[in-house]
Amino acid sequence: KHILIVPGDGIGQEVTAVGKKVLNKIAAKYSHTFTYDDALIGHIAIEATGNPLPDESLEKMRNSDAVLFGAVGHPKYDNDPSAKVRPEQGLLKMRKELGLYANIRPIKLFDELLGASSIKPEILKGADILFFRELTGDIYFGEKGRKNNGDTAFDVAEYSRYEVERIARKAFDAAKTRRKKLCSVDKANVLETSRLWRDVVQKVALEYPDVAVEYQFVDSTAMLLIKDPTRFDVVVTANLFGDILTDEASQIAGSMGMLASASIGDGTGVYEPIHGSAHDITGKGVANPLASILSAALLLDISFGMKEESETVINAVDKVLKAGYRTRDIADSTTPADKILGTERMG
Amino acid sequence: KHILIVPGDGIGQEVTAVGKKVLNKIAAKYSHTFTYDDALIGHIAIEATGNPLPDESLEKMRNSDAVLFGAVGHPKYDNDPSAKVRPEQGLLKMRKELGLYANIRPIKLFDELLGASSIKPEILKGADILFFRELTGDIYFGEKGRKNNGDTAFDVAEYSRYEVERIARKAFDAAKTRRKKLCSVDKANVLETSRLWRDVVQKVALEYPDVAVEYQFVDSTAMLLIKDPTRFDVVVTANLFGDILTDEASQIAGSMGMLASASIGDGTGVYEPIHGSAHDITGKGVANPLASILSAALLLDISFGMKEESETVINAVDKVLKAGYRTRDIADSTTPADKILGTERMG
Ligand SMILES: CC(C)[C@H](C(=O)O)[C@@H](O)C(=O)O
Ligand SMILES: CC(C)[C@H](C(=O)O)[C@@H](O)C(=O)O
Repeated sequence: KHILIVPGDGIGQEVTAVGKKVLNKIAAKYSHTFTYDDALIGHIAIEATGNPLPDESLEKMRNSDAVLFGAVGHPKYDNDPSAKVRPEQGLLKMRKELGLYANIRPIKLFDELLGASSIKPEILKGADILFFRELTGDIYFGEKGRKNNGDTAFDVAEYSRYEVERIARKAFDAAKTRRKKLCSVDKANVLETSRLWRDVVQKVALEYPDVAVEYQFVDSTAMLLIKDPTRFDVVVTANLFGDILTDEASQIAGSMGMLASASIGDGTGVYEPIHGSAHDITGKGVANPLASILSAALLLDISFGMKEESETVINAVDKVLKAGYRTRDIADSTTPADKILGTERMG
Repeated sequence: KHILIVPGDGIGQEVTAVGKKVLNKIAAKYSHTFTYDDALIGHIAIEATGNPLPDESLEKMRNSDAVLFGAVGHPKYDNDPSAKVRPEQGLLKMRKELGLYANIRPIKLFDELLGASSIKPEILKGADILFFRELTGDIYFGEKGRKNNGDTAFDVAEYSRYEVERIARKAFDAAKTRRKKLCSVDKANVLETSRLWRDVVQKVALEYPDVAVEYQFVDSTAMLLIKDPTRFDVVVTANLFGDILTDEASQIAGSMGMLASASIGDGTGVYEPIHGSAHDITGKGVANPLASILSAALLLDISFGMKEESETVINAVDKVLKAGYRTRDIADSTTPADKILGTERMG
């Protein structure tokens, strides 16, 4: 198996290096041969080539069996609304070019981290949500630009039936193997794209009579996720709503530093933490590598069909947490100082 | 002063009746003369006239000094993506026609409700956020429709400089009278409307050198609101992001049933709970009227400049909570059964 390592920007570099080490350990333990290459994306790619996703990187992605991804972004662009070339363009282009239409984000609390969340343990206990975020459509990829001498800006959100159908099917398929509940989130009381979304999900639902479906508006979902997280099983939603709701839901898992995601679709799958490049802690060796490690676990499971290997990784994370080790972001007032580890030691 | 009562749908009827009673009490206590009329909007307006906002209602709104509003919506339309006439159209048209571009949502926890939230009390303590949600632009009011024989849907998000400027000024003005911190929320790493938004806020900020400004992406704000709510003072954001984030933030106040909002702009101000029509509990007499009562308090303060009267209402709410009375939604396991009140008695 050929794995492409694409660390990107900020702490992406530090955590992806640890994720790769874990893949190596698995290869050794299970006598697999994993070969590696790496590629540039984001701010560092702009610095090196002027392009946030050089053709060479895209070629390498297409030719690998899976991609372990870090993060992209740099504060420099965030505070410069007029920048024409931006790190995120590399990420979005990668998603589009590789046809990564389904972003799968499992939100599950390791029991040891019940205390690390800002939500009450009795509310969190048992929460286990699998998000399906559509990743190649919506307002991310529609036409955007300026009118009136630049004084008016616009972004077009767009969805076609087939785009909703394919992500809905993936979500329903997953629901069948879980608690058989699916919540489709939209804003159908305002948006035409949401009305199409709801219409398609209602039709796909007919093929899955054993899955109980509910429809929620995005605003009330944002509230319910915090109020009553255990009511959710599988959640399927559009690109922008998924972006917002999964970040919010990271609080259910104690910290964003714990959450991995899989982006899959027509070709090579991409596996990445849901956290960003976090330039405020970059280079300090304190970033939590567990999201990258859990991304490696998803990679083994979904792209390589290596269930046992994947479980081995997840169990290792569990063991380390049970032994009381924490990175700073998941430590609390009861964590002894000598159990607070940096990025490498946690790896 | 002439006040228009617009209860709308579902529990809007029950809670607005209570809000009106409180206005009457204030008139009596302070020897004001308040006259009232009422008007139809939403589902009940469709049933009566075929129109979710009849011209007569709009005229009455224009000719009153303030509007006390309930809620609109009906499940019947939510699950029928093809319905052409919808209750929410009435609400959106009212906002647009009255030029209600600033929706102000104070999120403050009454100390007595610290236990009612799903968030840990030590995280919540001291949280006091004032949201400014833009209310007449964004993807709510851009062009929307279908292409490809209905198989593709689109919604256009749009913002012009002057729209961002006026809401930003209102938010900065408020920040000056508070803790002098403002957080502007956007998705400038993806959206052109957000880049315009950030650019304008950066410019307006120059006029308020004593206000500390930070810029956050909407996804990370959704996370930070739960992780660390006390870091926020004034938050200003676009229509759709404001819709999602304020519903989420309602968990900070213990319950959505506690939250009032003021919509102001060019003419008559409209005051309403942030909760919806809640058809699941309509007619049962259990809805929490405090959001409508607190909306009446905002009305007295903002539209009539009656600060003392407004405080009297807020203090009354505080007293009732201190005395241990609760509606069902804000009760917890420690609330004795005889302290759990219905809508009218709470009023
Ligand atoms: C960096 C940004 C463009 C990206 C997104 O909005 O999709 C990120 O927030 C994510 O969730 O992967
Ligand atoms: C009912 C709906 C159209 C409305 C909105 O999205 O603005 C509501 O959620 C609100 O926040 O007032």
